[in-house]
Amino acid sequence: MEFTLGQLAELLQGTVEGDPQIKVNRLDKIQEGKAGGVSFLANEKYEAFLYETEASAVIVSQNFTPKKPYKTNLIRVRDAYSSFTQILETYAQFTKNSQSGVEEPSYMDPSSQIGDGHYRGAFSYIGKKCQIGNGVKIHPHAYIGNQVTIGDNCIIHPGAKICDGSVLGNHCEIHPGAVVGSEGFGFAPQEDGSYKAIPQIGNVILEDHVSIGANTTVDCATMGSTIIQKGAKIDNLVQIAHNVIIGENTVVAAQAGISGSSEIGKNSVLAGKAGIVGHIKIAEKTTIGANTGVSKSIKKPGQTVFGYMGMDMKQFLKSYSLFKNLEELEKRLKELEKKA
Amino acid sequence: MEFTLGQLAELLQGTVEGDPQIKVNRLDKIQEGKAGGVSFLANEKYEAFLYETEASAVIVSQNFTPKKPYKTNLIRVRDAYSSFTQILETYAQFTKNSQSGVEEPSYMDPSSQIGDGHYRGAFSYIGKKCQIGNGVKIHPHAYIGNQVTIGDNCIIHPGAKICDGSVLGNHCEIHPGAVVGSEGFGFAPQEDGSYKAIPQIGNVILEDHVSIGANTTVDCATMGSTIIQKGAKIDNLVQIAHNVIIGENTVVAAQAGISGSSEIGKNSVLAGKAGIVGHIKIAEKTTIGANTGVSKSIKKPGQTVFGYMGMDMKQFLKSYSLFKNLEELEKRLKELEKKA
Amino acid sequence: MEFTLGQLAELLQGTVEGDPQIKVNRLDKIQEGKAGGVSFLANEKYEAFLYETEASAVIVSQNFTPKKPYKTNLIRVRDAYSSFTQILETYAQFTKNSQSGVEEPSYMDPSSQIGDGHYRGAFSYIGKKCQIGNGVKIHPHAYIGNQVTIGDNCIIHPGAKICDGSVLGNHCEIHPGAVVGSEGFGFAPQEDGSYKAIPQIGNVILEDHVSIGANTTVDCATMGSTIIQKGAKIDNLVQIAHNVIIGENTVVAAQAGISGSSEIGKNSVLAGKAGIVGHIKIAEKTTIGANTGVSKSIKKPGQTVFGYMGMDMKQFLKSYSLFKNLEELEKRLKELEKKA
Repeated sequence: MEFTLGQLAELLQGTVEGDPQIKVNRLDKIQEGKAGGVSFLANEKYEAFLYETEASAVIVSQNFTPKKPYKTNLIRVRDAYSSFTQILETYAQFTKNSQSGVEEPSYMDPSSQIGDGHYRGAFSYIGKKCQIGNGVKIHPHAYIGNQVTIGDNCIIHPGAKICDGSVLGNHCEIHPGAVVGSEGFGFAPQEDGSYKAIPQIGNVILEDHVSIGANTTVDCATMGSTIIQKGAKIDNLVQIAHNVIIGENTVVAAQAGISGSSEIGKNSVLAGKAGIVGHIKIAEKTTIGANTGVSKSIKKPGQTVFGYMGMDMKQFLKSYSLFKNLEELEKRLKELEKKA
Repeated sequence: MEFTLGQLAELLQGTVEGDPQIKVNRLDKIQEGKAGGVSFLANEKYEAFLYETEASAVIVSQNFTPKKPYKTNLIRVRDAYSSFTQILETYAQFTKNSQSGVEEPSYMDPSSQIGDGHYRGAFSYIGKKCQIGNGVKIHPHAYIGNQVTIGDNCIIHPGAKICDGSVLGNHCEIHPGAVVGSEGFGFAPQEDGSYKAIPQIGNVILEDHVSIGANTTVDCATMGSTIIQKGAKIDNLVQIAHNVIIGENTVVAAQAGISGSSEIGKNSVLAGKAGIVGHIKIAEKTTIGANTGVSKSIKKPGQTVFGYMGMDMKQFLKSYSLFKNLEELEKRLKELEKKA
Repeated sequence: MEFTLGQLAELLQGTVEGDPQIKVNRLDKIQEGKAGGVSFLANEKYEAFLYETEASAVIVSQNFTPKKPYKTNLIRVRDAYSSFTQILETYAQFTKNSQSGVEEPSYMDPSSQIGDGHYRGAFSYIGKKCQIGNGVKIHPHAYIGNQVTIGDNCIIHPGAKICDGSVLGNHCEIHPGAVVGSEGFGFAPQEDGSYKAIPQIGNVILEDHVSIGANTTVDCATMGSTIIQKGAKIDNLVQIAHNVIIGENTVVAAQAGISGSSEIGKNSVLAGKAGIVGHIKIAEKTTIGANTGVSKSIKKPGQTVFGYMGMDMKQFLKSYSLFKNLEELEKRLKELEKKA
């Protein structure tokens, strides 16, 4: 796959500054650009690389003004970042294998149904009474339990597990090794100190356009449903406990954990390793910092909380900067005590 | 499956307040109750829902006194929570598929043995010289290595992996994607800065009634055994390192991690994301808070520790409340310095 | 497999103090030693067990001087720890199954190639156009995607997943359930608040002698490569995001997480649950404590950082010891305020 800079500029509705006949066949990061590659510059932190890159061309935004000479060619577009994403998508379509058909051996119970244009990889498993839509890709070693419903155009990556009764909307992507619908962690303490498992008879519902990261776990509800709403994106190794609700377009980064029955509002962001206790509600548009613990409901939308026990981020940073020199503060106190 | 309230009351040895002929066919959460559903009220936090619920009936405890009018019917029992658990269990027995027999293709080395009433799902694997008891369910994609011993009535969920030499008691449940018996993380530093793997020749022993959560990892011992004692319950995404011992009826919540050779006493609770360093001992009946780090042995039983470096919980909360206003404290100090 | 102490001493180039005819057939931890077992003493913390152990022999270093009487026999060697490791290795070679050949059913696309001396377990999967070296062991349920390159003598444990385009050097070990090459977590926010996935067209490169722990996830790069350099050892349940670079001989303990595009210098150590934000660089020979968060680049090599927001470890411990008694400090301040 090879394009001239002129062809690329036409595709992106942009203009070439340099030689439109030069050919490129690869996407490069700007700091690693080599002849034959095309890069992009959208973040000013990377501007210095423009003046050194050996990439054949760099995509920049219309209003960008170079501050030094450079060797490369420019393609000017309305928005460098989204143009580059557009190329990435085209590139991905050409290079990624879009598998279809059935590899053998695979297993599908005869009581289950799957739509047109599907892929079922070798060693994939589909249990009883499943309803699976059109264009669904079920990769090798993927497991679909019993009475599972999956919408159109979902991708179930290798070794992902969708347990009994789960319901997936359209365009969901379940990454390798993720578990959707494992049993909730519910035990009734007995008089002798032992625990008895409480049956978990609910399920998991993933609405449209939900993404679940590699080796993430989403437990089914005790009763009712654990729900991940439309457009929410969950990263790798996240724990989502029984009866949790995650709002529309909320993003949860890697290794975060949400305890049972808590609700996260829409358009929120949980950074990596954030932890939410059970039975609380987080308002919409909340940002929860990395490794931040939240133990009480957050009612006012749009806040940013941070810290070991999540609090206003600015306040936490002030306190922490004093904490770092707590010894100094104690010395000042001692000094005053001597004088007193 | 449909019951009258009268039948339910008889099953639960309780009494109906309302119409015993009304029929229910579903379990509902009280806040989501609809006609035809039965709910329960055990936690006073949810009492307000009783006066609004549209569930056909609510199970309450004998001594409960309503404070307002309500539309639903009541079933009074000795203990609302355990009665509801009883119904859940009955419900689960009817609805959950109790698979048996062998789905093909599956793999079992001829040198291994498995008892009566088993299920071996498609693509399940059993290696050499395994001894597997009666009533064991081995789900699709489950992996049982070589020389593994499994007691009666265990459930090995889809894609769970039980590595070489592991020993499981009776009634153990290994949830999807969990790994039992992976190699311990032991490396001997070499003079050139590289590391050489130390062979891990021990195993993992799970005693009776142990539950291991989805995608949790339990490493085998360097020598001897990593041991999880009778009745311990481990949640999802937990890390249990080589040579750890977890006491009887101890509960470990999601994303907690226990480093090599540490011992956790019986009847303890580790909350989510708790972390325990290596080579220490935690006394029995200890409660370790969420995201709490413990770096020293805890000798006195029954304590609750909390905080970044685990300490007495009350003390931590006092310190943290002052930490939140550390700026204020510093201002007071400055004020005094001016006067001095 | 049975040896006399004399034979063992010869193997280890050491000498016997006691009866060289006594036979041993097992390795024991010193605190659990029984007749017929051989133990070792390398860490003085365990010396007390020497005087009580019932092991038939204990390996000690040449210069060790017992302080009390003991019942066992000694084998004196230059370095007790490395001698014991040597025995462990020999023992492991004898007892661990070194599988070879192909178990059926397994799946390998005809466009892929694999070298001599390989093992392909039942239900293992190899996609299109893969190049796999000699002596590679691919265990049951392992997944190798398309266009994957694997060097010689690698071990891909049960259920490990190596996604499209990944490149592994020689002597790599991928533990059960690990995911190498899952899609990076990259989404472009849209005007309506939703997110659009940014195609991740890069790959993962693991250099020689890299070990990846059970259920760990390593994302592929957006462009270019996520790289784990020669000899790095990664524990269980670790998250390594897109475009991360981990230096030679760096060790990352369980449940640590490294965000996108960060670089960790060589010969560093990340303790359990450590967290690194995106787009920073950590100098070589850095030690990052357990549960420590690092949000800024570390430029000076050889430091030890610790704490909620990583700082100099000694400084943190001083501050934390004052934090634990912050109430006391506030009382002293109040006292002064009264006098002022």
